[in-house]
Amino acid sequence: MANHDSLRALTAELREFARERDWEQFHDPKSLVLALVGEVGELAELFQWVPAAQAAEHFSDPARKERVGEELSDVLTYLLRLSDVLGVDLATAANAKLEHSRARFQPDEFHGIAPMKE
Amino acid sequence: MANHDSLRALTAELREFARERDWEQFHDPKSLVLALVGEVGELAELFQWVPAAQAAEHFSDPARKERVGEELSDVLTYLLRLSDVLGVDLATAANAKLEHSRARFQPDEFHGIAPMKE
Amino acid sequence: MANHDSLRALTAELREFARERDWEQFHDPKSLVLALVGEVGELAELFQWVPAAQAAEHFSDPARKERVGEELSDVLTYLLRLSDVLGVDLATAANAKLEHSRARFQPDEFHGIAPMKE
Amino acid sequence: MANHDSLRALTAELREFARERDWEQFHDPKSLVLALVGEVGELAELFQWVPAAQAAEHFSDPARKERVGEELSDVLTYLLRLSDVLGVDLATAANAKLEHSRARFQPDEFHGIAPMKE
Repeated sequence: MANHDSLRALTAELREFARERDWEQFHDPKSLVLALVGEVGELAELFQWVPAAQAAEHFSDPARKERVGEELSDVLTYLLRLSDVLGVDLATAANAKLEHSRARFQPDEFHGIAPMKE
Repeated sequence: MANHDSLRALTAELREFARERDWEQFHDPKSLVLALVGEVGELAELFQWVPAAQAAEHFSDPARKERVGEELSDVLTYLLRLSDVLGVDLATAANAKLEHSRARFQPDEFHGIAPMKE
Repeated sequence: MANHDSLRALTAELREFARERDWEQFHDPKSLVLALVGEVGELAELFQWVPAAQAAEHFSDPARKERVGEELSDVLTYLLRLSDVLGVDLATAANAKLEHSRARFQPDEFHGIAPMKE
Repeated sequence: MANHDSLRALTAELREFARERDWEQFHDPKSLVLALVGEVGELAELFQWVPAAQAAEHFSDPARKERVGEELSDVLTYLLRLSDVLGVDLATAANAKLEHSRARFQPDEFHGIAPMKE
């Protein structure tokens, strides 16, 4: 049944992908965080010089959408590998965090107000 | 049926969460990449001074596992918001990328060999 | 004489700061990259929800300028610690890189054209 | 006199480099943070699969030291452009932050103790 859920299926497939190549030896938590950072950097590079107001339209081009989809996928890949190595079920954790955020940021209180870090 | 899949269900819930708070105005692509970077930074801070060899054990402590699960969830949150805003179906993109990686990194050729960036 | 140069003076002071606290044991290269990532994340959080067109003005406020100066300093701190631990003289390396970029991006050829990653 | 100081000289040269190519139009604060993130990502990629205990030795190889020096330089480049665009004198800010850290982390109290984010 887990195989019908995208996060759990991907997690299992990525674990198998690493196992088949004997890459588990490289996948300690700190290395995986660095790999995640590398992929986030590649994602940022696609956006850096695109004017903010044109970014959504820029990536509506099919070739660019496919390209950004690859980088988003690479980020997800290492996020799932890291979660798996740490024994965190990311679907469960993300649902718990969303419940927490719903309580913390009441729609009335935060309507149109971004919680700024200052 | 989409609601039974974790990535699609989370994507829909996060979109609704933003809509209810009128936060869609803040969720342009470049801002979401920066928010993703902020959460990756918080994740990195949990790991930075933990010796590499002790990292997995360090986070097996239940309180720390919950804490790192929150940060992993925050990264996923902005990754899904960004994908949604860009019109990328992340589950589909990630499966396509995995197929591509399976072909590119043949188990025989890359057994025990990490593809190094030099 | 080194002390009259800001990059070399800061590098020496940060090394002494770590030595005095017996923190050199934590400052292996991978940990320092993660610490750098953490500080870049804190920097990104200051910018994430500020509209792009208002960002420069937003940080012209004295309290915000001081705040962003602290985060920029934290990034510089770990960049210098990392360079020092790796035996890289960052001033020399940065000047060499700038020479390389001057040759690679000829003003005539790249006038008004950002070198895009696609 | 400023030209004899590495941070101020580099800041001035990078400003001129951008001006000569009419690239100032791309260097708004959010874009520069994203460019910084891209370079930090390239730095992280050099380290990700190197075992933590071997990282310092790995980069003592001359070709690798030059390579990592280029990435460290790229990070510094965007850190200085961002500081310049925000009107922050990074040498002054970094010295102020160091003073603050000296007072906050007393050598006796923090001897051998990394200030952990939990």
